[in-house]
Amino acid sequence: MKKDRTGNFFEDFRVGMKIRHATPRTLTEGDRSLYIGLTGSRAAFCTAETNALQLGFERRPLEDMQVFNTAFGKTVPDISLNAVANLGYAEVHFLSHVYPGDTLAVETEVIGLKENSSRKSGVVYVRSTARNQFNREVLSWVRWVMVHKRDHAAACGEAVVPATQPVVPPDRLRRGDYTARVREITTLTCIEDLWDDYVAGERIDHPGAMTINDSDHSIATRLYQNTARAHFDGHAMASGGGHRLVYGGHIISVCRALAYDGLENGLSILAINGGSHVNPTHAGDTVACATMVLDKVDVGQPHVGGLRLRMIGVKNTDAASIAFPAPGEGKAGHPSNVVLDLDYTIAMPKRRQ
Amino acid sequence: MKKDRTGNFFEDFRVGMKIRHATPRTLTEGDRSLYIGLTGSRAAFCTAETNALQLGFERRPLEDMQVFNTAFGKTVPDISLNAVANLGYAEVHFLSHVYPGDTLAVETEVIGLKENSSRKSGVVYVRSTARNQFNREVLSWVRWVMVHKRDHAAACGEAVVPATQPVVPPDRLRRGDYTARVREITTLTCIEDLWDDYVAGERIDHPGAMTINDSDHSIATRLYQNTARAHFDGHAMASGGGHRLVYGGHIISVCRALAYDGLENGLSILAINGGSHVNPTHAGDTVACATMVLDKVDVGQPHVGGLRLRMIGVKNTDAASIAFPAPGEGKAGHPSNVVLDLDYTIAMPKRRQ
Amino acid sequence: MKKDRTGNFFEDFRVGMKIRHATPRTLTEGDRSLYIGLTGSRAAFCTAETNALQLGFERRPLEDMQVFNTAFGKTVPDISLNAVANLGYAEVHFLSHVYPGDTLAVETEVIGLKENSSRKSGVVYVRSTARNQFNREVLSWVRWVMVHKRDHAAACGEAVVPATQPVVPPDRLRRGDYTARVREITTLTCIEDLWDDYVAGERIDHPGAMTINDSDHSIATRLYQNTARAHFDGHAMASGGGHRLVYGGHIISVCRALAYDGLENGLSILAINGGSHVNPTHAGDTVACATMVLDKVDVGQPHVGGLRLRMIGVKNTDAASIAFPAPGEGKAGHPSNVVLDLDYTIAMPKRRQ
Repeated sequence: MKKDRTGNFFEDFRVGMKIRHATPRTLTEGDRSLYIGLTGSRAAFCTAETNALQLGFERRPLEDMQVFNTAFGKTVPDISLNAVANLGYAEVHFLSHVYPGDTLAVETEVIGLKENSSRKSGVVYVRSTARNQFNREVLSWVRWVMVHKRDHAAACGEAVVPATQPVVPPDRLRRGDYTARVREITTLTCIEDLWDDYVAGERIDHPGAMTINDSDHSIATRLYQNTARAHFDGHAMASGGGHRLVYGGHIISVCRALAYDGLENGLSILAINGGSHVNPTHAGDTVACATMVLDKVDVGQPHVGGLRLRMIGVKNTDAASIAFPAPGEGKAGHPSNVVLDLDYTIAMPKRRQ
Repeated sequence: MKKDRTGNFFEDFRVGMKIRHATPRTLTEGDRSLYIGLTGSRAAFCTAETNALQLGFERRPLEDMQVFNTAFGKTVPDISLNAVANLGYAEVHFLSHVYPGDTLAVETEVIGLKENSSRKSGVVYVRSTARNQFNREVLSWVRWVMVHKRDHAAACGEAVVPATQPVVPPDRLRRGDYTARVREITTLTCIEDLWDDYVAGERIDHPGAMTINDSDHSIATRLYQNTARAHFDGHAMASGGGHRLVYGGHIISVCRALAYDGLENGLSILAINGGSHVNPTHAGDTVACATMVLDKVDVGQPHVGGLRLRMIGVKNTDAASIAFPAPGEGKAGHPSNVVLDLDYTIAMPKRRQ
Repeated sequence: MKKDRTGNFFEDFRVGMKIRHATPRTLTEGDRSLYIGLTGSRAAFCTAETNALQLGFERRPLEDMQVFNTAFGKTVPDISLNAVANLGYAEVHFLSHVYPGDTLAVETEVIGLKENSSRKSGVVYVRSTARNQFNREVLSWVRWVMVHKRDHAAACGEAVVPATQPVVPPDRLRRGDYTARVREITTLTCIEDLWDDYVAGERIDHPGAMTINDSDHSIATRLYQNTARAHFDGHAMASGGGHRLVYGGHIISVCRALAYDGLENGLSILAINGGSHVNPTHAGDTVACATMVLDKVDVGQPHVGGLRLRMIGVKNTDAASIAFPAPGEGKAGHPSNVVLDLDYTIAMPKRRQ
């Protein structure tokens, strides 16, 4: 009869396991308002109903990172309730826009397992998929997370480490949504820079910065119904000599909102190619970010192009101080004030040829 | 012409007085989103439109504690603006579901008065009733609250202490809403435990814990349009050597959200039989809770049964450390870290016979 | 290719310049919920759908200060990103009610410029106008703001200081909306005081007080998509030896919500005749306010009259301690705990003649 839910530990996972997550969630205009209030997002496409109509859409979608964080939250009770740290993302595919009233249901498959040499924990690799109420895939992603073992002595079998693609291939990017009208975004943002005006190697220091307080991140994380203890249980964190951690997905949302300035005519996120939360963020930290244009991508559409961007978020320093490590140098190349290193691809209108 | 509104003091109340409260309030999907953001609620019934449809409802209702806190807030300017403390609840009847777009209007009758021996304050007993826009009773409750006297010398008459029922009788529970489809909740929560799987005397330690910050509780309490000074006026509280108090109804909401784990297939609250805010909660406190199943109740419906539960909330300690006092032992039996002792009844689907 | 957006500095403005602001914004019921959660507003007209219907409206509008703050926020990236301080308001005309689903687009004209004698900054005078999706003017306002110069040596031309009217004239007040049914507001607020019951010179000390925390004001300010650094960048503010400032528009909203008690039957704001944020507010400050009735105004309508009010907001002291300076004495007459001095006009139902 025991009903104390303790979540899965490392030894509870098996490669190939499929997990349906509780419970489906409907997103609404109320969730959108709260997302703006918590992140300060100004994305033109999502900020006004008339903007979406002008850009050739019937309605304004919800922001991609709100969808991601909501879907991610669903996986936490089963995957990462006993996590030490969320280590990285790959192959994050944004496949369909999500609109207020849509309901997301999420499933996960375990695609890899690797016990740590300490035998106290291991890395779980999962691919999760969110579908809407029409059973259409709207988002899928791979993440790997370090999870405690319940019993350090438990046997855990051979390591299976899945291969992930360094960049999401074009055929896994959302398509067909964009008409010639997307170019009208310049009349909404009052900024003329389009896809054609960006070059690989270009750097943008976003001017804003955002101090994050405990209620900011904990309201956001509760909104996503994410139950990870490290974000909520200040008593337990203090017992360990620490403080509550800001949910990494909130950091991505805040940086994405700050990155509006300089990327105003971006439409949607097409993919997150990879990323990691390099160092933790705590309440009181001020986050800033800078973007490097990594590549200009042909996404097979006449009216929009892809911009592959590297966004680095820092705490308690200026965007101008950010050093972009060489590609592939990764986490080891970052100083301790770097909190996010994200490689992602957005859609942006092209000029008329 | 003086328009300084100072609220009612103890000597302003008379047994039998009826008070209409300002002003009716419409609840919306925006309020729901904020409720999830402030409490982390994951109740399956209320989390997705598709969930409610699957369970045989036309729409998803708002959560019961959101309805309770909104209705309660309406009574504060007239009943408890000059309160010392909210002492207890009884006979809290949840009679109809409330849906986004519904409007609540609230009235109160004074049913008892008892001056304290100090003559500085007294206990006011009230029964309040919330009705929707169709004048249908959706909620009623009894509470008693200690209220300051304006003039310590004022004469206050004989004490009248109303008798309240220790358990809400079945004929005051919401009925007729639940069809055989409610059993499908197990496919949403991915948890198989139904009414049949709980036994009286069973204890559940809910695994989560929630640190509450000032903005968390004050946003919630403002959302309920509750104006009690103790929650908002930090300057006055500091003048008295203290800090703002977290509104007790927010503590119930947070504990109810934490109690999802282990009671996943619960549908709605049918009644609060009794309860008290045993000790105050302040910003920075971390709340956890445990539940004891007190009784399994026949609610006269084929598809759902009632579970009478005792939920004890604590601050800055683990759920596992909670000691359940013997029934009736009450507040005196609680250590100083207990913040809530609530006796309530929920509906849960029964297995097919 | 440089895309570092640094905003306009004093020398970038020219009298007569017109600026369209990014981007139009749709307001929803979600925004209304958050506004109630952040301010505690209880305005009868806006709190329930049934209230608006009873008062003769087809729907309940959004609150005027929510509309103002949203429209104001749109102007920040172009006008006040490099502001030292927002100095004052005049000629704030509330011309049409705004309803959930409406979209606001905002334009600004520079109407005056005056370099400071230090040559490090100057005052920019602007008139901004918000229109809805039908291109109907819903709000216009004049403000003046002190803005840094990028280059202290830049030449700035002759000072142009626009004349503004000390009181908004009746022909710029919203009209025609109110029927005889507005008198029914007394049945909603349970308060009998109408326009006829107020007299010029009458003072109302509002009983509530509100402590403002960092998440409260920063969520509000993000909701308005206001990007002024002083509200968000705690790291930069600390570098200067200070703390984040509470956005002044949030202070107006909070004071307006506190002013419910004593002005319960007020309907809408018709105009802000003038106002200034006399001293800054920071997280942890507790705000209270008092109102002086300055004048009773004939607004040319049979069922409502105008009340011209002076609302003074203070921090960390009681409303009763507020001294109202003689009219025109202005900021110099205020002690350091005064944070707001606002001269505004509201509509209130008149008794049947």
